[in-house]
Amino acid sequence: MAGYVSDAVIRRLPGYYRHLRELEREGVMQISSQGLGERMCLTASQIRQDINCFGGFGRQGFGYAVPELRERIGQILGVDKPHRMIILGAGNIGNAVACSDSFPANGFETIAIFDSDPRKIGSTVDALTVQDIACLERFIQENTVDIAVLAIPSEAAQALTDQLYRCGIRGFWNFAPCDLKIGQDAAVVNVHLDEGLQVLSFKMLHRHE
Amino acid sequence: MAGYVSDAVIRRLPGYYRHLRELEREGVMQISSQGLGERMCLTASQIRQDINCFGGFGRQGFGYAVPELRERIGQILGVDKPHRMIILGAGNIGNAVACSDSFPANGFETIAIFDSDPRKIGSTVDALTVQDIACLERFIQENTVDIAVLAIPSEAAQALTDQLYRCGIRGFWNFAPCDLKIGQDAAVVNVHLDEGLQVLSFKMLHRHE
Repeated sequence: MAGYVSDAVIRRLPGYYRHLRELEREGVMQISSQGLGERMCLTASQIRQDINCFGGFGRQGFGYAVPELRERIGQILGVDKPHRMIILGAGNIGNAVACSDSFPANGFETIAIFDSDPRKIGSTVDALTVQDIACLERFIQENTVDIAVLAIPSEAAQALTDQLYRCGIRGFWNFAPCDLKIGQDAAVVNVHLDEGLQVLSFKMLHRHE
Repeated sequence: MAGYVSDAVIRRLPGYYRHLRELEREGVMQISSQGLGERMCLTASQIRQDINCFGGFGRQGFGYAVPELRERIGQILGVDKPHRMIILGAGNIGNAVACSDSFPANGFETIAIFDSDPRKIGSTVDALTVQDIACLERFIQENTVDIAVLAIPSEAAQALTDQLYRCGIRGFWNFAPCDLKIGQDAAVVNVHLDEGLQVLSFKMLHRHE
């Protein structure tokens, strides 16, 4: 990439990827910054600025080659390679992640799901059998795991994160409503659903200001 | 509030609210910007700047009164009043939202869940019976609904959003992986789970740069 990329641009990258894939499926092979902007509700100049961050792609009077740009953004996102995930917690969220078709379709495959509740251990979720969390470390030693999905209560999240980190896991998708303290070489994305609802409440309250 | 508040500050508001509630539960009644910053992994000066946006609260040498600040941020977020939600789609995500304890604990109560699949209509999710989506408009006429939770495929999302908007719904929590086109007087928060995973992939790939 061409130097520093802001958080805001990083957050927009998956949107670019999604729209470019849709365009490809629709058979659109090239698009102007104007056209892409209208589709994504961004200005043409914002589109050009963003895409310049990734190394510059457009040609004057031609616009962007959709498949090339989609491929390049996929590489930047790292989604051109598969990721193997384990889910910690076989509750509603853990099950929803395990049962999703879209994560594997995007290269994020769930290879195991763990819980500590004896009533859940041994039950099946989608094609997976819920394993005893006591077997977690051995599983990680014996299998390649890229991402841990934390779908557990806050109280358990930090200790489990520490354990997973010691086992070498460096990618955390955290649904627990807490902030994880973790080494700088690990990557964390939080999905704080409660907080999203509170932001919605804020927007509803202040939308006329 | 004291004028314009940036998106970044808005996104941090629920974090402030969560930490202040935790502090209150721990019996901490006052905290310095330094102390709150350490807890939230922000600098003291960032804390002071953020809180100044909400009208200014601290007193030199005293810091912030935790209950007052928590209450004020709750008012700004609009979570001091309850919200009534309906869920569209009784799949994995819709069920996970319906079964969550934490949304009602935060004042976001699910009052109905709808689906179009005859196999799902009439089944129960938590304490709710899945209703036929054909009955949606009548339900909204007869009940106060603040928020629609879209837990349906992309293909159905825009038409359903248009219908809900015509019925007067102005709050949308959208789990469908698409952007909704909607009137300016509506508020939308997207939860694009796929995109969160892609951002995690990006962070894992670029964390050593």
